[in-house]
Amino acid sequence: MKKNILYAQSGGVTPVINATACGVIQTAAKYPDRIGKVYAGKDGIIGVLREELIDTSKESKSGIAALRHTPGGALGLEESRAQYERLIEVFRAHDIGYFFYNGGGDSSDTAHKVSQIGRKLGFPVQCIGVPKTIDNDLPVTDNCPGFGSVAKYVAVSIMEASLDVESMASSSTKVFVLEVMGRHAGWIAAAAGLAARAEGDPPHVILFPELPFKQREFLAKVKHAVETYGYCSIVVSEGVRDAEGRFLADAGTRDAFGHAQLGGVAPVVANIVKEKLGYKYHWAVSDYLQRSARHIASRTDVEQAYAVGEAAVELALEGKSGVMPVIKRVSNNPYRWKIAETQLSRVANREKKMPRNYIAADGFGITPAARRYLAPLIEGEDYPPYDREGLPKYVRMKKVLAPRKLPPFEV
Amino acid sequence: MKKNILYAQSGGVTPVINATACGVIQTAAKYPDRIGKVYAGKDGIIGVLREELIDTSKESKSGIAALRHTPGGALGLEESRAQYERLIEVFRAHDIGYFFYNGGGDSSDTAHKVSQIGRKLGFPVQCIGVPKTIDNDLPVTDNCPGFGSVAKYVAVSIMEASLDVESMASSSTKVFVLEVMGRHAGWIAAAAGLAARAEGDPPHVILFPELPFKQREFLAKVKHAVETYGYCSIVVSEGVRDAEGRFLADAGTRDAFGHAQLGGVAPVVANIVKEKLGYKYHWAVSDYLQRSARHIASRTDVEQAYAVGEAAVELALEGKSGVMPVIKRVSNNPYRWKIAETQLSRVANREKKMPRNYIAADGFGITPAARRYLAPLIEGEDYPPYDREGLPKYVRMKKVLAPRKLPPFEV
Repeated sequence: MKKNILYAQSGGVTPVINATACGVIQTAAKYPDRIGKVYAGKDGIIGVLREELIDTSKESKSGIAALRHTPGGALGLEESRAQYERLIEVFRAHDIGYFFYNGGGDSSDTAHKVSQIGRKLGFPVQCIGVPKTIDNDLPVTDNCPGFGSVAKYVAVSIMEASLDVESMASSSTKVFVLEVMGRHAGWIAAAAGLAARAEGDPPHVILFPELPFKQREFLAKVKHAVETYGYCSIVVSEGVRDAEGRFLADAGTRDAFGHAQLGGVAPVVANIVKEKLGYKYHWAVSDYLQRSARHIASRTDVEQAYAVGEAAVELALEGKSGVMPVIKRVSNNPYRWKIAETQLSRVANREKKMPRNYIAADGFGITPAARRYLAPLIEGEDYPPYDREGLPKYVRMKKVLAPRKLPPFEV
Repeated sequence: MKKNILYAQSGGVTPVINATACGVIQTAAKYPDRIGKVYAGKDGIIGVLREELIDTSKESKSGIAALRHTPGGALGLEESRAQYERLIEVFRAHDIGYFFYNGGGDSSDTAHKVSQIGRKLGFPVQCIGVPKTIDNDLPVTDNCPGFGSVAKYVAVSIMEASLDVESMASSSTKVFVLEVMGRHAGWIAAAAGLAARAEGDPPHVILFPELPFKQREFLAKVKHAVETYGYCSIVVSEGVRDAEGRFLADAGTRDAFGHAQLGGVAPVVANIVKEKLGYKYHWAVSDYLQRSARHIASRTDVEQAYAVGEAAVELALEGKSGVMPVIKRVSNNPYRWKIAETQLSRVANREKKMPRNYIAADGFGITPAARRYLAPLIEGEDYPPYDREGLPKYVRMKKVLAPRKLPPFEV
């Protein structure tokens, strides 16, 4: 008996989350005898609660194909709590047999609960979690779709900006600070370390959220780099805290009205360097640029993002529920991977931080073990097509909604 | 009679300045009967003063070829005043018949003076200025090599980050601010406007250094965008000033010690939005990332950067001096251009700002005329090669110096 799929994206976007949507929709189309429509929650789970279901069969085939190379969340994402009974009501009204929730740890928890509550309410739905997060902090899976592309952006960017600084350091900027995302886990900051392959290569200092900021050791390291290599290239995770556990970003700057300024640990770190060592500095905050930079995506990442979408459909057709397709590393060199599966309960609400043995003994760089883990994830390029005007051909969905079947509902 | 070339880079780097070096060196190699060596001033003109001349014949052919796709300044750049008599002394010692100075308005002035002083001192040198600047503010030339790639980076980045904001705006960030370079001229900020091709497309607001910041009108524009499109995407030039002529960046923030914080107009603008309209915001400062992002270079720009290097050699062989090869636009659609030449005196120390008719009547966007001018400059992609580890194959020069012939000189 044919059932419909309900697919929803959750949390923050990644450069490749739409590739997963593409994998789901294109794979489902291969099973017309077993799968009906693929609906997508407009703006995520909130669209399901509001019974705003995007009917993806109304999109063009080329539009769906273009999802593979389009950043952002083409179906919308919104932060919202699930209200389980209402979800089941909507599922029942639209003959949803499969619920795919594409997100991180919280979403795994939600998908897990939906599967339990559906059964309890007499409308069993097969619930599949689909991993994605730029933070790379999900357990069980070897890595998270979305991370590899941000990792590549960060590694390429610090390599390029450091060439800039290096070429002008003798009379100009000596210290460059790049702030990257990662509130709790330092995976993104660590990825910048991939650019440093030989002694003296930038970045010379990485500041991880896993370790408290030690100003004296940090300054000594910066001074050493400037004196040895002529300049110092620094990558700082937004989540770095001082010894008392306060975010460095919050401790630092105030606006003209005296209010603490939100965000921006890079200027704080740069100011410390200026104050204590007197070096001329520049800083950059890549913010959303890093997690939307589809133009420099990792091919490995795009393929994995597509593959987990594909696998979700296949797991559903195998009758599975309460599971998540995960990436399993088969070998490092050459890098080979395959899709495996795990129970959602094993993924829900657990955070995978950087292991200590991935961080150099002095706390300011990555180890060979980290490099072996990280390097394959940025392998390969997967450029979007460009139009004649030199801009990427990114797609916007038409977002035609399925006709409502239920009375309005206040979210 | 064979003479040597002395090539030096000046000022700030661009994503494609090394493509110009590549154009000079590869073209000179085509005339072995007329041109001897191509020397490059280590770190620019200061290397010439110090008699530190990089002998580019000691680099590998593949290394020289890789300059075409390597960002930063591979030969080094340093801010330094020319000391003309010493320059001529070094030229004489190393049989320099041709001096190529690759830079902006200041460098044109220097090259012009060198040609005059050389004649006066009885050692005439053919001086050719070679244009480059990301600021696009040189007169006479239709555009400046280096600008097109930064323009492409900025247009692609705001397009991508805006897709991110758009997909999450209903419950999360509503205002995104991207700071771009351009202390005096708004060309780079304007280029971001290329991403906005249809009504409602981001960026919704551009702040130019050519116009004083009008807070009331700005806030009205932001509010309108959020209420109409659900979010507002803003691009701000680092050089924006208030009605009294003060940089907004300086007026804004203070560090924990009460010192004015250098740089960062994006957080200032974001804070104004937060204070007055209460919207949740994010901001990014791309800083050096934008002018080193060779990974997303404009093919047009790379070709033009190479072509001006090539043309410098050809002008020299035609016996010209005190001139600069410039880019002349032949047609817009399809875009065609050719190399022309101008007198250095016409370029020296003059700054080309955005014409007022390139800025929308309300001051917050670009006009169709600006689009016609800017769009061709970002046409085409020209990706660097990547290695198996997923990183670009950028090259470092060996920088073998020519043997000294003069006593040491204090710079």
